[in-house]
Amino acid sequence: MTEVPEPVVDLRSDTLTRPTDGMREAMARAEVGDDVYGEDPTVNALEALAAERLGKASALFVPSGTMGNLISVLAHCGRGDEMILGADAHIFYYEQGGAAGFGGVHPRTLANRADGTLDLAEVEAAIRVDNDHYPVSRLIALENTHNRCGGRVLGVDYMDAAAELAHSRGLRLHVDGARIWNAAVALGVSPARLLAGADSVSACLSKGLSAPVGSVVAGDRDFVRRARRLRKALGGGMRQAGVIAAAGIVALEEMVDRLAEDHTNARRLAEGLAALDGVYLSPTAVETNLVYFDLAEVDAPTLCDALAARGILMSPTGTTGIRAVTHRHVSAADVERTLAAVAETLRAAAA
Amino acid sequence: MTEVPEPVVDLRSDTLTRPTDGMREAMARAEVGDDVYGEDPTVNALEALAAERLGKASALFVPSGTMGNLISVLAHCGRGDEMILGADAHIFYYEQGGAAGFGGVHPRTLANRADGTLDLAEVEAAIRVDNDHYPVSRLIALENTHNRCGGRVLGVDYMDAAAELAHSRGLRLHVDGARIWNAAVALGVSPARLLAGADSVSACLSKGLSAPVGSVVAGDRDFVRRARRLRKALGGGMRQAGVIAAAGIVALEEMVDRLAEDHTNARRLAEGLAALDGVYLSPTAVETNLVYFDLAEVDAPTLCDALAARGILMSPTGTTGIRAVTHRHVSAADVERTLAAVAETLRAAAA
Amino acid sequence: MTEVPEPVVDLRSDTLTRPTDGMREAMARAEVGDDVYGEDPTVNALEALAAERLGKASALFVPSGTMGNLISVLAHCGRGDEMILGADAHIFYYEQGGAAGFGGVHPRTLANRADGTLDLAEVEAAIRVDNDHYPVSRLIALENTHNRCGGRVLGVDYMDAAAELAHSRGLRLHVDGARIWNAAVALGVSPARLLAGADSVSACLSKGLSAPVGSVVAGDRDFVRRARRLRKALGGGMRQAGVIAAAGIVALEEMVDRLAEDHTNARRLAEGLAALDGVYLSPTAVETNLVYFDLAEVDAPTLCDALAARGILMSPTGTTGIRAVTHRHVSAADVERTLAAVAETLRAAAA
Amino acid sequence: MTEVPEPVVDLRSDTLTRPTDGMREAMARAEVGDDVYGEDPTVNALEALAAERLGKASALFVPSGTMGNLISVLAHCGRGDEMILGADAHIFYYEQGGAAGFGGVHPRTLANRADGTLDLAEVEAAIRVDNDHYPVSRLIALENTHNRCGGRVLGVDYMDAAAELAHSRGLRLHVDGARIWNAAVALGVSPARLLAGADSVSACLSKGLSAPVGSVVAGDRDFVRRARRLRKALGGGMRQAGVIAAAGIVALEEMVDRLAEDHTNARRLAEGLAALDGVYLSPTAVETNLVYFDLAEVDAPTLCDALAARGILMSPTGTTGIRAVTHRHVSAADVERTLAAVAETLRAAAA
Repeated sequence: MTEVPEPVVDLRSDTLTRPTDGMREAMARAEVGDDVYGEDPTVNALEALAAERLGKASALFVPSGTMGNLISVLAHCGRGDEMILGADAHIFYYEQGGAAGFGGVHPRTLANRADGTLDLAEVEAAIRVDNDHYPVSRLIALENTHNRCGGRVLGVDYMDAAAELAHSRGLRLHVDGARIWNAAVALGVSPARLLAGADSVSACLSKGLSAPVGSVVAGDRDFVRRARRLRKALGGGMRQAGVIAAAGIVALEEMVDRLAEDHTNARRLAEGLAALDGVYLSPTAVETNLVYFDLAEVDAPTLCDALAARGILMSPTGTTGIRAVTHRHVSAADVERTLAAVAETLRAAAA
Repeated sequence: MTEVPEPVVDLRSDTLTRPTDGMREAMARAEVGDDVYGEDPTVNALEALAAERLGKASALFVPSGTMGNLISVLAHCGRGDEMILGADAHIFYYEQGGAAGFGGVHPRTLANRADGTLDLAEVEAAIRVDNDHYPVSRLIALENTHNRCGGRVLGVDYMDAAAELAHSRGLRLHVDGARIWNAAVALGVSPARLLAGADSVSACLSKGLSAPVGSVVAGDRDFVRRARRLRKALGGGMRQAGVIAAAGIVALEEMVDRLAEDHTNARRLAEGLAALDGVYLSPTAVETNLVYFDLAEVDAPTLCDALAARGILMSPTGTTGIRAVTHRHVSAADVERTLAAVAETLRAAAA
Repeated sequence: MTEVPEPVVDLRSDTLTRPTDGMREAMARAEVGDDVYGEDPTVNALEALAAERLGKASALFVPSGTMGNLISVLAHCGRGDEMILGADAHIFYYEQGGAAGFGGVHPRTLANRADGTLDLAEVEAAIRVDNDHYPVSRLIALENTHNRCGGRVLGVDYMDAAAELAHSRGLRLHVDGARIWNAAVALGVSPARLLAGADSVSACLSKGLSAPVGSVVAGDRDFVRRARRLRKALGGGMRQAGVIAAAGIVALEEMVDRLAEDHTNARRLAEGLAALDGVYLSPTAVETNLVYFDLAEVDAPTLCDALAARGILMSPTGTTGIRAVTHRHVSAADVERTLAAVAETLRAAAA
Repeated sequence: MTEVPEPVVDLRSDTLTRPTDGMREAMARAEVGDDVYGEDPTVNALEALAAERLGKASALFVPSGTMGNLISVLAHCGRGDEMILGADAHIFYYEQGGAAGFGGVHPRTLANRADGTLDLAEVEAAIRVDNDHYPVSRLIALENTHNRCGGRVLGVDYMDAAAELAHSRGLRLHVDGARIWNAAVALGVSPARLLAGADSVSACLSKGLSAPVGSVVAGDRDFVRRARRLRKALGGGMRQAGVIAAAGIVALEEMVDRLAEDHTNARRLAEGLAALDGVYLSPTAVETNLVYFDLAEVDAPTLCDALAARGILMSPTGTTGIRAVTHRHVSAADVERTLAAVAETLRAAAA
């Protein structure tokens, strides 16, 4: 009798989400035009919708979150200007340093606190005074939710305070909102409210929201005009992009609210993991869909390999740490199956 | 009785081509994965197919031709290195100077000849010797077909000679092959043969081939490895990109040969225009799908406006010049209608 | 009767040192040529002498320490490469971020420890693995003595260990040795020994050594060849530079040993300040010629202004901190006069 | 009897000029301070004098003409901006492409006419309109006198017209005035008048004026403030730079008028050369101190080697071209000796 393999539970990233049937259908019938000429009605509709949801005057569709951040930073900072951001910021840590490499922007990193925030007193102290030895401080960049800090949510008051600090000193505030939708759902506020003080935001459609491709950046009209030029120069100007923007519209209209389910699953996964011997994790720190945990005795890559053999995929983040991400393709049952598999694997390792 | 407007004949660009039904269908059923993890089977299939068609070891799917060129130039040239290219090259003229702006690459321009080529003796003379006053010459970039030179085709012997020159002096040869398919069709050779000496090529799927989004770059494995890193840094790494790559596969498999039809239409358009009083144009210079012509007495934007009122769209290129591009949505009948409209409009202007 | 003002005691920086009579004389009779042609014998002699003193195969005369560091970093790092250095490093903090701004180099900062070192375990952990999300780690940069850490000296064992770490991971080690001479004198070793593991060093002639202008960078011949090209491109190639190099030769030959005197004066100043109420300072941390201290109750700019009115100049480093630097124009008597003035000013403020 | 070698006649460049006795003396007694603090009175005096001579509100002392140009271009142009300049401009041809390499500035080159000018109609046509495919045109750069065009002088009317064009289109005009003093002397006007329309100028003290080191840049106060910041970042901020600025003051006060003598010698050299068989040269094109000529039958490096053996040094500029430069160390007698040597060498080669 043939063994029927169980389907894989893929917790490596929410970027793995595949388009929904509704997205496939919307893509198939999308009205398109040449977006470089501004003539793609579906792209235009997505940009209008994204601007409204993010509470900004204008928005721009871009091929990736990395480009959204790069464009935003370069739209705010000239050659040699400084941006202040967390040492664990995705922009600093995971984007090849493109803002420096391509744009000559100087990153001034501060330690992120466990909750993903920066100490605003430290931010204020880091803003440069006018002196020929110093670059000019132009930008503060926050990340919400904060990936490397465990998907932590930066709250409305904090975001407002950061914006006020930035503006009081003549700086701009950019928000890497790759998962801003998760933050808004977790807080029970609109993204627009959460971003009220931000001068720009980059938000992904292709993570928890399941669109196949793309992010949006949003801000005031002048920012988006500069962003559009930068997008063209970087090679992000696409032609009949309506075929993918159509999925983005579905993502924004239908896929945001369901993120709550991913958060519930993540919390359940965290609680289950925390109950296991040899796993270090604070479940209350799991506020959205990212679960980071550490192992006491087993090597993280070893555990991940053992789990992969059982059809459960997670990402080691080093020798002791592991990241697991819940998303549309991970059900409550998958979480239970995952917990059972981790428990069993750790027991086997201990034996 | 209501007037039924005639459909528009849009000769502004072949980038305006919309996806075919076959592309729509392929996109709707495309198997996808996360291409940043290398797991999108459709992207992988497109890259394998493109590598084969372009005669290179490896290829990479990118969101646009501009990114394809930018990645290629930066993969060959470090900060401060020099590339030699035509003053009318798309890379130099129409890409915001991104290779300099983002990569610190120094463009050394030579005049393009009317046929789109560079005089190879001038190229050789432009290669810098080792001297602390000079940048290091690293790259020669050609464009085939050559847009600003009227869609002219650079032949096999010329391409081979340019490659031989580059390699004999330790430089690399990049080909901006946005319309390399048109060149190959016009010459009756394979793109692979035409590019045999090139170290890299960027080729568009979204122009005459009608795919909605994307280009490919191709070269040896080491080049593509560097290109993949640059794509990620520039923000061209997309997730379930199979939804658009699927259309690219159709483009390569089904849409190349039909470019001959666009060429025929372009030649007919050119001959018709050349027969009109007050139009300057050499029909024999129209080798592919681009028709550039000049007006003796009427202002180019004025003529374009008058034609637009009749549902015929062309792009003025200055005060006297106009560009018209044939493509899949322009039929032989559309060409005749266009010629009639131009003739009538010029007559009206003369009156 | 006219009041004769006491001469100023200028403790703002050792960069204020004026050339000695011997330097003036050497400059006046220096044999010169065009150094861009490599024909200035005095520059050549200085470079040979500096290479020998720094224990490297070759050296290059540059107009400033900032250029020395910028050239060194760019000689090691291409566009987008990462360097690991202290958050308090002069290169990061005080040079306008030029390595990022002009060269696209990504600075990865780690917290400096109080003694100016970086925790080498943290450095090792910061070296990036091969991943398309990451820049490539190319360089570790240390500073010795460390300015913002109070002129602290990094010892021979530490320097060797840092070099070993760098080389074991395929990185290079650059030393910002603006005050490497002070470090060597404090340690009682030769600069060459202290720098034995370094791939490059930038060392100033115009700080404690009193030359009017210039620094040297040193390394192996290939490094210096690249550095020479970068110097020309940045505009540091000077013509009859022998007129200033002559002073540099005197600096290296005659002015290094006397730095011990500056260190003694700094220690005496530190001990005297530490004995005052309302001054925070650990005298044992004063290892060379930099004295940083904090005020409990008086505002630092206010104290500096009050001292300036008495002819004593120091630099506030913020609202509570002050830096005082000893050098050739500050005698033991000047130190006592300074201590008396500080004491009196603080007493007056307290009253 | 010992043969006494004749002294060398070094016609390679006017950069070879050594400081005068008056300069040596001024340097030896220069009052100095730390120029980074703005406290070097001699530097301040030089900058004031240079500003006045160049007719600008402010000036800045820099270590080289290359830095003067680089600073000026970067002060006018942000990342990705375009400058329009001659394909034979020193900035483009001989400065390693630093404006692109370090500053991301895109050079748009036009062919220089034989007299060193650019066709202003071509310049106007090259100014970009607002379009996302184009960089933003920011700067026109001219060179006066024009080195690669044979030391040709751009006249007052031309300079004024270029400035008017630039300003009418919102661009700035920079003048690479490495030899602006020669231009002014040749025209019999003040440099201030010649530069009346320029927004910035870089002028060398170390070429015909014989100062050992340095150039000045000049412009309005805001330009010089930006230039000062760029100088610091590039590493051109020097400390007791008064020791070299002192020579610059002598250069401006005493050495400008005597350039007429160099021009007379150059013209005599040109006329003598033109009279020789096998030498191609138009003496009327020799307007200042640069003499470029071509050889019909003898290889240029071969002739230069043969002349060097006779103590006469010139620079081959390729296989057929030679550059000879007159300056303070080249007397009328040296010119005659040179002509005799060239004639004899060519005769020997012909034999």
